[in-house]
Parts: sequence; structure tokens; C-alpha cells
Amino acid sequence: MSTDGKLGPNQRLIGVPGSRAALATPALVLDLDIFEQNLERMAEIFDGRPEGIRPHAKTHKCATIARKQMERGAYGVCCAKPGEAIALAEAGVRSLLLTSPVVDPYKVETLVGLRGGLDELIFAVDSERAVDLLARAAGTAGVVISVLIDVGVGNNRTGARSTEAAVALGRHITAHASLELLGMQCYAGHVQHIEDPVARDAEGRRVLEGIAATKAALTEAFGPLKIVSGGGTGSYDIDLEAKVFNEFQVGSYVFMDVEYNAVRPRGNAAWPFETSLFVQTTVVSANVEGRATTDAGYKSFAMDGPQPIVVSGAPEGTVYKFLGDEHGWVHLPEGAADLAAGDVLSCVTPHCDPTVNLYDVYHVVRGDMLVDIWPIEARGRNW
Amino acid sequence: MSTDGKLGPNQRLIGVPGSRAALATPALVLDLDIFEQNLERMAEIFDGRPEGIRPHAKTHKCATIARKQMERGAYGVCCAKPGEAIALAEAGVRSLLLTSPVVDPYKVETLVGLRGGLDELIFAVDSERAVDLLARAAGTAGVVISVLIDVGVGNNRTGARSTEAAVALGRHITAHASLELLGMQCYAGHVQHIEDPVARDAEGRRVLEGIAATKAALTEAFGPLKIVSGGGTGSYDIDLEAKVFNEFQVGSYVFMDVEYNAVRPRGNAAWPFETSLFVQTTVVSANVEGRATTDAGYKSFAMDGPQPIVVSGAPEGTVYKFLGDEHGWVHLPEGAADLAAGDVLSCVTPHCDPTVNLYDVYHVVRGDMLVDIWPIEARGRNW
Ligand SMILES: Cc1ncc(COP(=O)(O)O)c(C=O)c1O
Ligand SMILES: Cc1ncc(COP(=O)(O)O)c(C=O)c1O
Repeated sequence: MSTDGKLGPNQRLIGVPGSRAALATPALVLDLDIFEQNLERMAEIFDGRPEGIRPHAKTHKCATIARKQMERGAYGVCCAKPGEAIALAEAGVRSLLLTSPVVDPYKVETLVGLRGGLDELIFAVDSERAVDLLARAAGTAGVVISVLIDVGVGNNRTGARSTEAAVALGRHITAHASLELLGMQCYAGHVQHIEDPVARDAEGRRVLEGIAATKAALTEAFGPLKIVSGGGTGSYDIDLEAKVFNEFQVGSYVFMDVEYNAVRPRGNAAWPFETSLFVQTTVVSANVEGRATTDAGYKSFAMDGPQPIVVSGAPEGTVYKFLGDEHGWVHLPEGAADLAAGDVLSCVTPHCDPTVNLYDVYHVVRGDMLVDIWPIEARGRNW
Repeated sequence: MSTDGKLGPNQRLIGVPGSRAALATPALVLDLDIFEQNLERMAEIFDGRPEGIRPHAKTHKCATIARKQMERGAYGVCCAKPGEAIALAEAGVRSLLLTSPVVDPYKVETLVGLRGGLDELIFAVDSERAVDLLARAAGTAGVVISVLIDVGVGNNRTGARSTEAAVALGRHITAHASLELLGMQCYAGHVQHIEDPVARDAEGRRVLEGIAATKAALTEAFGPLKIVSGGGTGSYDIDLEAKVFNEFQVGSYVFMDVEYNAVRPRGNAAWPFETSLFVQTTVVSANVEGRATTDAGYKSFAMDGPQPIVVSGAPEGTVYKFLGDEHGWVHLPEGAADLAAGDVLSCVTPHCDPTVNLYDVYHVVRGDMLVDIWPIEARGRNW
């Protein structure tokens, strides 16, 4: 299914080649037309602007997608975890930004050991421990490692807690000859999914004011910052107006999901991005009127978000619930004809990132035809 | 780390060999002493009895564990899905019972194709479609396939909905020369996790009465049933007393988890099983008083159950929450000393089965030493 028609070792085809409907399920299905449209739309937003994107690979964990993003203008990709970055580097992705602090000597040394084979390797840090481990590993390896100061944005996840703390950490970084301070990073995760556009706008701007103040202080202390990185799919437009970031870590826009589809765009406009990712599931038992049992349960949908939404194979108004690890439970609307064992349903994923993490491959389709299989190289690489 | 000290291709060691504390995290850690004790305790319960166990491999998805269960008396193992069964068969497990109906021709044919290399391959069916697909595949392959009638127990998951429907399905099975009717299966999933022992007992007995009636009708129609399979960790003792099943599909007893630890045993006794499975996680950021950010979020814990419980590395009363896909959020009790980046915590998994499905390997420890790495061959095999 690759260009030469051969399947690689990770590209095991599950099901019968050719038709989307014949895939063995649960399968993670990527609609290539919509995916390409999402990629293109985000790229167009940045065409001709001084800002650019470094999309977050935590969403897709896939070297093929990372390459497509970079071919269409992305500077590189972001990774959440060392294991994720290592998997993508091994699959040939050569520009990586680690957005979570790395504090384990084994992980730091393994990553620094990859530096020679990469074009870019950047770490976000928020503690002296992280800085010292990096400086030591870089010194031992005889390389210079690029560093961003991770700045907290009030959601208590990671990051320096104040402008003063950020400046102090900057001084700690610049004291090491094996480290190069490139700038800062801040991700306002709590802003992205505020559904009401007015409230999201207000919180987004509030956060950006704090970030701008820290940026000014860091610039005064260390000179112009090469990278000021942040933002996500839910705030990219707010962030673009504010002109604080020059790099955007957008992730979910390639797929969209039930959660993001519930977030209302500003000015009641439509999102430029549509849903490209689906879980396909099959009815395995249909012995109860108005109900059907599918083959996709807790192990096939991430359970941190809302319910999946059924978009094909069952009438509108069908509700997807769960019957445990292995089974879903479809509740049909009043008066609808019952489903039968073997019927195939397609569902929007509740939350794309952790759902992707449950699958080994994307089954890539155009319309009803399976056209490719893309390995999810960093699936499970959450260390 | 296998007996000859070499690592196989799936046994990539993540972290530094030797010490449990030096594992790269999040890591799935199996305490071998407790695991072996759980295995032994369940086996002892059945020693010298006419009943036996066919443990459910959906819990562990691991050929090494399946083999250990069979070495200590299990008849074979159960699998929830064809993908799971195929992975275990490829890893050398030779006795498999599929407990969910299989209605996809590709899956049925692939499984039937494995028959020759196995000692036992048994399918539970609950529809004519499933029977017909099996009969055709068995006929084409020139083998006889063993079948159980899956009987519904009022929780609407799978299974024939009435004794009459079960008998009718039995007649449909025995009409096919390529199928052999071995008996029946019923799993009362909703009983297992009723926390109150008196309520669990009552519902367990109520369900067993229905099962006994169906068993009697099937025996009258088809002669003595070789296999009457059911039960789980939460009902094995109730089921043993009732003498309806001769095989028990116990799963979670090997690991236990927060959910099962909340289920109170009958007569306020202690469970014979203790927690052997943990997620080990590391503090990556500790810039907020009374809080710490860890490296284990939605991608490292299944999110269908309760919160993880921290059992080491942080003071009693510490609460584990989530900060998203990649991070956990530890809330320390009033007055406790703050944690630091690099601190290592161990947590009981909320729900063991879907958490196991997130990891590639068990890091097997005795006390504080890493002694082995067991691949989770059927991880992600939920089709
Ligand atoms: C640090 C960081 N940057 C960027 C993103 C991407 O955000 P989104 O998926 O909302 O576009 C995430 C997602 O959680 C993130 O954690
Ligand atoms: C059909 C079936 N049998 C047995 C089990 C094992 O049950 P437990 O983990 O409660 O022991 C399960 C678990 O969900 C199951 O689905």
C-alpha cells in the first residue's frame, strides 16, 4: 500500500484489501481528502506571514504525517515525551521540539545522543534539575543543545511560575556553555477547549498579556528571542492577532474530534478544519430490540472525553454508549429499524490524541477505498 | 532478561537495568512475588475440585502469563477478540476460547486457519450469522470447530436472550457437520463489581438461577454439556457454590486494581488476591506548592474507572488527578513536604485490563530489582 504497493513490517493489513467497509474492526480510519484539506487550510493561514507552525506530533504520533506537515511549511514537529521523539527520529523525522520537561538522566542522554542525526533538537525546561541534566549530557557528548524556557500560564501544569522565575532559569541556562537559550514556550491548554467563543477569547487574551510581559523581561535580559512558541487549535486565531508567538504548536487540527467540534469558532464562523479521523466498528450482537452491541469499547476509544458520535451505519439520533473494555452499545432512536450482526458503523473519536494512542496504524481511505496504511510509530511511546 | 539474560526484539529495556526505581516512566510494573501468589491462590481454590479455570487473557494479553496459568492447571485461556487470540497463538499459546461472537468472515477464516496448530479452539456464538460463517469456514478448511452457545444474562451485552433462543441456536449449530456443540457460556459482567457483598451475592444467585434453567433445557435437548463456562474474579466464590459452571473465566485476579479492591469480599473476609500491577510515574515539574506534575496522563492510565491510587513515593492522603494526555497531577495532603522533579511514584491502576492495553511490556520486578520483561503480545489487538 506504500507507493510501490508493498506492505512494510508495521503495515499489516487487517481485513480485505480495497474497500473501507471490509476492514477488520475496530479500525482507526483516516479520510485522506479531509486530512489533506485540513493540512492545506492551516498552511494557508500562515502563508506569507512572519509566524509559522511547528505542529504537535502528540496528536498523530506518525512520521508520515510529520513529514507531510513539514513538506507543507512546518518548521518541524513538537513531541510530548522522549519516547515519542525517539520513535519519530528513528522513523526519519529530523526536527524535534520536546515540549515537556525531561528530568530522567537516561532519557536526556538518549535524546542528546540523537542530536548528530537531527537538524534540530530543542528542549523546553522548567527546573534547574532539567537544565543541569541537559548541560551535563550535552557537555559529555560534545554538542550544544537548544533550550526554551517553559513558562507557566496559570493552569499549574508545567513551567516557571513567574517572570522572575523564568529570568532566573534563563540565567541558569546561559551559565552553561553546552546550552543555547533560544527563547520560550507556553501552552495554555485550558484555553483551547472553552466552547464559548467570547469566553475563550477573553481567557486567551488574559493569558497572552502575562506571556507578553514575560517575553519582554526575557528579551531585556537575554536579547531578542528566536523562538516564542505556543498556541493550539482552539486558540491559534486569538494568538495570531496578539502577535506574541512566532511559532504555533497546533495539534488536533489535522483530525478534529467530538471535543473540538463542540468548541465554537469566533464570530460564529465555521472551523476551517473538518473531521478526518474515525473509529470504524462492527455490530457483533443484535439480540435486543432498539439496541446493538459493537466491537469497540474502552480499549478502542479513549475514555477521558465525551461519547463517540456515530456518523454512518446507523440512523441519526443513534447514541453510542459503552458495555465495557471490548464492546460498545448502540441505542437506536425510537422507531428506527434494528441493526444486524455484521453492520458497520463509523464514529467521530471523542478525543483524538489518546484514541490514536490505542492503534498501531491509520487505515487511510479516499471515499470508500482503502488507499494506504500509515504506521503510528510513536503509539505507546508515552515515556 | 529472559533466562539466558538476552533481550528479545520486543523486550526493549526502557531505562537502566537492575533497579526498579531507575525505570524510564511511565512504566507498567508487575510485582512477581504477588503475581505468583495470586496465581497460586486461585489454583489452590480449584485443586481437587471437578471444576477448573480457563482464565481470561483479555486482562493480561500476554503469552508468558497465559503459559504460567496453564502450567498451574488452567485448561487454556479465553480471548475477547480474534486479534488477541491470533497474537497469543502466534506466541505459542495453544488452547483458546473466543468469548465474544465473531461475525466478520475475514476474522473467522483467519482463526479457523489456525486450528491445525492448536490443541483447542472454541467459539462462543449468539447469532445464526456467526454459526453460518463458522460452519462455512470450517467446512472449507476441512476441520471441525467447537462451539459454545453464548447465553445472555440480562445485561444486554451479548448472548441468546432466552432459553428458547438458546435451544434454537443449538439446533442451528448441530445441523452443521463441521461444528461440534460443546456447551454454553455466560458472563455476568454486571455482577463482578457490585461492591456490597450481600447485594453481589443476591444478584449473582439470581443470575445463576436463569443460567441453570437454560443449562437444563440445553442438556435435555442435546445431552450432557461438556463445558459450562462463566464467572469472573468478583463472583467465583458465589459461582462455585452454585455448581452451575464447570469452567471459570477469571481474569483480573492476577493483577487486581482500584476497582476490584473496592469490591468487598463475602463475610468481610480478605480477598485471596493482592495488587501485583502498578504504573510507575515520575514527577517532571514541581513548581507549585502542595502539587506536582507527573509524566502519566490519559495515555498511561485507562480513564474508564476511578482515580489511580498512589502507594509509594508520596505521603498517604496524596490524591492523583489528571492534567491531560501526558501529565498527572499529584495533590499532596496538608502540611506534607513538597515533591521534587525526578521523584518516583507507584500507583495502583484504576482498571487493570484497559491500562495494560496501553503498554508494550511488563517490567517484572522482585522487590526493588527488575528481573524480567514480558512482552504484551496482544496489546492493541482489539479487533
Ligand atoms: C504543549 C502542547 N502544545 C500543543 C498542543 C496541541 O494542542 P491542540 O491539539 O489543541 O491543537 C498540546 C496538546 O495538548 C500540548 O500539550
Ligand atoms: C467474557 C468475560 N469473561 C471473563 C472476564 C473476566 O472477569 P474478571 O476480570 O472480572 O475476572 C471478563 C472480563 O470482562 C469477560 O468479559
